[in-house]
Amino acid sequence: MTSPNADDTVLIIGVGLIGGSLGRALRVRKCARRVIGWGRSPDRLQQAVDLGILDSFITTWEQIPRETTLVVFCTPVPTIVEQVRLCLPFLPPQAIVTDAGSTKASICTALQDLAAGQPTFIGSHPIAGSEKQGYEYADADLFAGRTCIVTPMASHSSSAVEKVEQFWGQLGMRPVRMSPAEHDRALARTSHVPHLVASGVAASLSPDDLPWTGSGFRDTTRIASGDPSLWTGILLENRDEVRAGLAVVQEKLAAFDASLAANDAKALQELLKTGKELRDLLPVSPAERYTEEELA
Amino acid sequence: MTSPNADDTVLIIGVGLIGGSLGRALRVRKCARRVIGWGRSPDRLQQAVDLGILDSFITTWEQIPRETTLVVFCTPVPTIVEQVRLCLPFLPPQAIVTDAGSTKASICTALQDLAAGQPTFIGSHPIAGSEKQGYEYADADLFAGRTCIVTPMASHSSSAVEKVEQFWGQLGMRPVRMSPAEHDRALARTSHVPHLVASGVAASLSPDDLPWTGSGFRDTTRIASGDPSLWTGILLENRDEVRAGLAVVQEKLAAFDASLAANDAKALQELLKTGKELRDLLPVSPAERYTEEELA
Repeated sequence: MTSPNADDTVLIIGVGLIGGSLGRALRVRKCARRVIGWGRSPDRLQQAVDLGILDSFITTWEQIPRETTLVVFCTPVPTIVEQVRLCLPFLPPQAIVTDAGSTKASICTALQDLAAGQPTFIGSHPIAGSEKQGYEYADADLFAGRTCIVTPMASHSSSAVEKVEQFWGQLGMRPVRMSPAEHDRALARTSHVPHLVASGVAASLSPDDLPWTGSGFRDTTRIASGDPSLWTGILLENRDEVRAGLAVVQEKLAAFDASLAANDAKALQELLKTGKELRDLLPVSPAERYTEEELA
Repeated sequence: MTSPNADDTVLIIGVGLIGGSLGRALRVRKCARRVIGWGRSPDRLQQAVDLGILDSFITTWEQIPRETTLVVFCTPVPTIVEQVRLCLPFLPPQAIVTDAGSTKASICTALQDLAAGQPTFIGSHPIAGSEKQGYEYADADLFAGRTCIVTPMASHSSSAVEKVEQFWGQLGMRPVRMSPAEHDRALARTSHVPHLVASGVAASLSPDDLPWTGSGFRDTTRIASGDPSLWTGILLENRDEVRAGLAVVQEKLAAFDASLAANDAKALQELLKTGKELRDLLPVSPAERYTEEELA
């Protein structure tokens, strides 16, 4: 299969862990003619070029090349809408704009007037990441075998949606379409609430307790090391769904507490069994990834 | 350093993941003259011998050899006290009995009359494990670089305590002394509550949500795959401390919810920062292990 996107000029807005991994993946897989990074710090961007993450970089909207075909916003969720608006006048009409933000409803609603426009904006969320920050941790394989949710509106042209799906697909991702609201409801439960709970468990310890932690605590709290500022944005943008998902976890914990208070082994074991049954449904492979054969 | 335990005859009661890993570690490191397993199923035990985990096995207390120097109970927490009592009449007086149970107060209190006895019982808890079950997953390196808490009573002879500390030390563990109550308070926070929370997070999802999980959900809920029956025993044996630790996590989650309800970015970010600061204190190494040089 020849790459249908091999002629693309891709502009990555925000070259951190996600933007850096995207640049590296595009270059390693030869999925673009040119990968350009946009950011504020020329020193940092030059270093990303030196590391082979980008072909080149720009620091102003005015420098956006006319041949740009795809723009991917990899900036923090609360800044995306405003930045898309600022960038828009400098984009050629053929450009398709997408993002990698962890929430979709607020972004896609705020930009829905662009759905039928030229350039157009279509929301994406590649479900891939790390608790680490910065392109120093950029990983060309970050996306491979993962799912990417694409959240088009009714007025999007199917060719634009397919183009975005192809874009993520070439990085080895499995593209799935969903409405922005469905996305936010699902991700609240699978990602945003677990993040918040991991943080709560970590915060419940004192440094004196750390010598008595094992691999269980380490894994359960890994994502609590994520950037608090990034996550504040994500959690607030999706706060209704996060609160609803959190309430479900709180109910489970209250049920655990009740079974302990009543010394009720049967109820406690039943609760643990419910958790195990769900968790055991995840693929055994530590990376839980789809192979590219499965996607073909 | 020559192994001070190289002449030991070690009897492992219960050859599952922990007992099996212990047998394999003792044999690989040549830390015992002979490693004998005790269990109910001759077929399973013969297979453990065939896999090189044990030198031999027995299925009745009457078969315990007179030269036994160390007995390690690797059976589920709620069964340990009764089994120690049953085994005791068949042990030679020089034998030191210990265990690998995840709670200590109830076990050590129930057996405190043995502290000054011959044989003597001293509680241990090697902080090492896995969500997996069975000696099929036995890992000779499971204990290396981890901490082992030993919980002696005032009436224990120092030579017996040192012998138990040496025993775990030879497997590469860092032995630390603590009272049984201190142990249970610390482990409630670092292990038992995280287990319960991981289970609650897993149980809050429906199977339909699983395609939208990423590595964060996978890690946060890994330990939820642990054996519900084993964990019911651990959680109930330590239920007062577990409830106290759980209440702290519940308070953190309520604070998260309040910050979301108030749309209070500053409060939310501060909560996330507290979790991150604690979590970032863990060593960077993925295995968080002590090197054996550090222990020397």
